[in-house]
Amino acid sequence: MTRSAAPLAITLGDPAGIGPEVILGAWARLRAGGRAPPAFVVGGPELLRRTAEALAIDCPIVPIADPAEAIFACAVGLPVMAGLDGPLTPGRPSPDGARLALASLQWGVKFALSGVAVGLVTAPVAKGALAAIGWDYPGQTEFLAEACGHPYRDAVMMLAGPSLRTVPLTVHVALAEVPELISAELIIHKARVVAAGLRRDFGILEPRLAIASLNPHAGEGGKFGDEETRIIAPAIAALQAEGIAAFGPVPGDALFTPRARATYDAALCMYHDQALIPLKALEFDEGVNVTLGLAIIRTSPDHGTAFDIAGQGKADPGAMAAAIVMAAQMAEARARDA
Amino acid sequence: MTRSAAPLAITLGDPAGIGPEVILGAWARLRAGGRAPPAFVVGGPELLRRTAEALAIDCPIVPIADPAEAIFACAVGLPVMAGLDGPLTPGRPSPDGARLALASLQWGVKFALSGVAVGLVTAPVAKGALAAIGWDYPGQTEFLAEACGHPYRDAVMMLAGPSLRTVPLTVHVALAEVPELISAELIIHKARVVAAGLRRDFGILEPRLAIASLNPHAGEGGKFGDEETRIIAPAIAALQAEGIAAFGPVPGDALFTPRARATYDAALCMYHDQALIPLKALEFDEGVNVTLGLAIIRTSPDHGTAFDIAGQGKADPGAMAAAIVMAAQMAEARARDA
Repeated sequence: MTRSAAPLAITLGDPAGIGPEVILGAWARLRAGGRAPPAFVVGGPELLRRTAEALAIDCPIVPIADPAEAIFACAVGLPVMAGLDGPLTPGRPSPDGARLALASLQWGVKFALSGVAVGLVTAPVAKGALAAIGWDYPGQTEFLAEACGHPYRDAVMMLAGPSLRTVPLTVHVALAEVPELISAELIIHKARVVAAGLRRDFGILEPRLAIASLNPHAGEGGKFGDEETRIIAPAIAALQAEGIAAFGPVPGDALFTPRARATYDAALCMYHDQALIPLKALEFDEGVNVTLGLAIIRTSPDHGTAFDIAGQGKADPGAMAAAIVMAAQMAEARARDA
Repeated sequence: MTRSAAPLAITLGDPAGIGPEVILGAWARLRAGGRAPPAFVVGGPELLRRTAEALAIDCPIVPIADPAEAIFACAVGLPVMAGLDGPLTPGRPSPDGARLALASLQWGVKFALSGVAVGLVTAPVAKGALAAIGWDYPGQTEFLAEACGHPYRDAVMMLAGPSLRTVPLTVHVALAEVPELISAELIIHKARVVAAGLRRDFGILEPRLAIASLNPHAGEGGKFGDEETRIIAPAIAALQAEGIAAFGPVPGDALFTPRARATYDAALCMYHDQALIPLKALEFDEGVNVTLGLAIIRTSPDHGTAFDIAGQGKADPGAMAAAIVMAAQMAEARARDA
């Protein structure tokens, strides 16, 4: 296994959420298992030190002035960029906290874009708190797309766990709106981004993409819904014509049995819950949110700020640990390919 | 564990489908494990004998003239009602095959209704083949509801496996039609049937029902969809008011993590794939279709006739075995209660 020359950058997320504690918990867990890749946190050395102390997490903090120091500082503890910090106020989001989260994100993406960091792992932010300080994006992913010079739609969310990867075609929309939002063009666009991402960042030379149906039993020959024949099948044919190993439409309930999961590298699902239900049922605490289609590598744990339990030591660091490990593996796959 | 006094009745299903072979395979497997409950197949002794021979399934057939003989005949092999039979034509459905399937079903429900059988396990039929001989029902469940003197809507389908039970509120309809089909009245009706069924047939004194949301993140406070506040929450309040331990609406993707599954006895889902995706992902070859709300106990394996693989020995008898075991357990729970 080759090691990438630069470390990963981990953003703080909202400092009043569970971000700080899951970063510390994940790092301590990975380090104890000898699995911690070179990485540093973008800001918050004092905040993280106090969090570790309050929750008795065995994770020494090593303040650094430059990301390049992270590679060596890792041997001593968790490297954290100095010069950016804030008070510890778990469970109480504030404009100052939002400003800290935003600064951490802005610096993180700069480090990743310049190559100072090999990839970016983002802790959860609070959209409401960020909106209150004038940040106008639906989420971190859209912000990152713009920072990378891409239109929003090029940033494709993939949920990944040890035994399953899913991509929702439509995301945060009412279920009633899903049928009208599905188009062959959208399926083709997302499938192309996913296939390219699996090749570049996961080392899968010929990615196999299962495309889900929208209707139960794939509409059973048009008896309940015709999106399969009208939209999904033509999109699959077009993808196959350009050499992408796409197949389907596969009835949603047939797509996630162990036997079915062995036949593809990612499942393109028509709506949020079709992608998220199997992922969370099967990979519950190891679900990683991967953003494909950007110039940079970006992962994040598949959970929110969880203000209600922040600072209590209840948050499970498993998803953050999985996000860190996956970003490191993606960076290695990309480095091998280059 | 008390033993019920009467045997289970197992219908043949379409004789050209995988019904005969999964009945034989399930019985052989259960018998080998010492788990076969008293049961008999409603018809097809010669057809089953030839199937067992062709596929080298170790399952002696014991023709019986009366269901009462089944209890003792079980010691020797699989009891099968004589006087109803047909030729072996795997993969080739026919009007004669459909008539045999229908006769087996009609006799089976009579035995169950009269108490000669403690419950009914149905093998899969081919709706097309049955329609061709003038049978006018959407499926076996509706036929059974009518035979039991219930309106169709009283027969509620529950999918059950070792670690999860789900109930779809809407079933074989296009996804686009789901939002308009959901009503508080329908949720309340189905939840009542499910709660009563779990009490009577599963021995769960105070069934806990999780009610799923329709929209991702339960609509996130009305941002994408309002069915949660407009329809689902009021239905839950009404159910709670009558003493049913219902809760939710729970976002679909949060409902099937191991931790969430421990909090309820059944999940009421808004549409087919929301209920079937987690069930098949988690319980793949042990999913049982249970019909609640009827006078009789009825289970069936969660698969179809699979004409394409019939007669080849490829069909997995796991779901049929699980359906037989679950029907027997339900009969015991009901007998204890009586």
